[in-house]
Amino acid sequence: MRFCPFAQRACIILAAKNVKHEIVNINLKKKPEWFFEKSPLGKVPSIELDGQIMSESLVICDYLDEVYPDPPLHPADPWRKGQDRMFLEIFGKVTGAMYKVYFSRGDQDILSKGFTDIQAGLDPFEAELTKRNTKFFGGDKPGMLDYMIWPWMERLPVAQKFGGERALPENCYPKLFSWMEDMKQDPAVKATYLSPETHYKYLLTSISGSPDYDMQV
Amino acid sequence: MRFCPFAQRACIILAAKNVKHEIVNINLKKKPEWFFEKSPLGKVPSIELDGQIMSESLVICDYLDEVYPDPPLHPADPWRKGQDRMFLEIFGKVTGAMYKVYFSRGDQDILSKGFTDIQAGLDPFEAELTKRNTKFFGGDKPGMLDYMIWPWMERLPVAQKFGGERALPENCYPKLFSWMEDMKQDPAVKATYLSPETHYKYLLTSISGSPDYDMQV
Repeated sequence: MRFCPFAQRACIILAAKNVKHEIVNINLKKKPEWFFEKSPLGKVPSIELDGQIMSESLVICDYLDEVYPDPPLHPADPWRKGQDRMFLEIFGKVTGAMYKVYFSRGDQDILSKGFTDIQAGLDPFEAELTKRNTKFFGGDKPGMLDYMIWPWMERLPVAQKFGGERALPENCYPKLFSWMEDMKQDPAVKATYLSPETHYKYLLTSISGSPDYDMQV
Repeated sequence: MRFCPFAQRACIILAAKNVKHEIVNINLKKKPEWFFEKSPLGKVPSIELDGQIMSESLVICDYLDEVYPDPPLHPADPWRKGQDRMFLEIFGKVTGAMYKVYFSRGDQDILSKGFTDIQAGLDPFEAELTKRNTKFFGGDKPGMLDYMIWPWMERLPVAQKFGGERALPENCYPKLFSWMEDMKQDPAVKATYLSPETHYKYLLTSISGSPDYDMQV
């Protein structure tokens, strides 16, 4: 699904590794029969290889990193690799909260809770990037952690549009905001990038109950 | 926390790998100040090495598997490793549903939903073990997938006690039930095993609102 942040994760890694692939988009509201035959979980993203299916974005991306090791995206040191995976767990707060914000339908309590969670998810990232004192979490190039959080960071301006008074104050994340500008220059990010305007336009169709999966971008 | 299934995951892997370690238990209802200073997530299990902390049971166990490769617990083939991790995601249905069952407090709808989810989580495992036609998911010895689902399988008889008419019919999972008997013979499982009676006894204190973390076993 062209606007799904989880699917985007897989597309970014495929681009970063220059893996030849074919993309088949799915109508998530009306999943085709053949999809369930192939993928019992019925989830996107799924990758197919020799008739076998693998689902779950993080599992797929780690698999791709193992079989296409150039460039390696995880830290070579197991402890640092584990720390990055731990940060991904923390980021789970943001992915859930962003949906809350999108679908808050003007409910100020839900909106407020959503932004509190987004902040709770982002604060450790701002602190960590400051501590690492590198351009990206992966060092001077984006690594797995950078790429795995990117789809939601790309959509952060959209969440802000919904935020009203609860939106995050500008410049509250100086490191992350500068990181975002750097990420936008990365070829793998560029390959899948959609503007906040496009995300917003799609999202309005989704909120209306009839997501326009085929929307022109 | 001695009765926490997530913490048990880490203890099983430490036992499977013969890693020298010290266990510090935490009162989860009254987490000590020093714990937050060490572990910002404030979660168990956490491991400490040279003053640094790593949290999240799966992250910890994968880390331990990398730095203590004997015996290796993941399949060597990246695709099979990915398939096992995907199955772990499916198992997430069971871990959440089991809490629902425990804390259903006689609400038949919650109980019913809980057992439906437990079944939805276990059915693919019964099918997969049949398909693999091996003693364990890992082959003739338990692998990471076996160990990661074990703490909830150890507690399955406890969920059954709460189930009444909704409990899973006996022998509905012949492969998994025979797998459970085999797992109980594994030294790493034995090292952390608690009986259903002990789990049940603890759980009653937890449901009452005053979990007895120091209960004699």
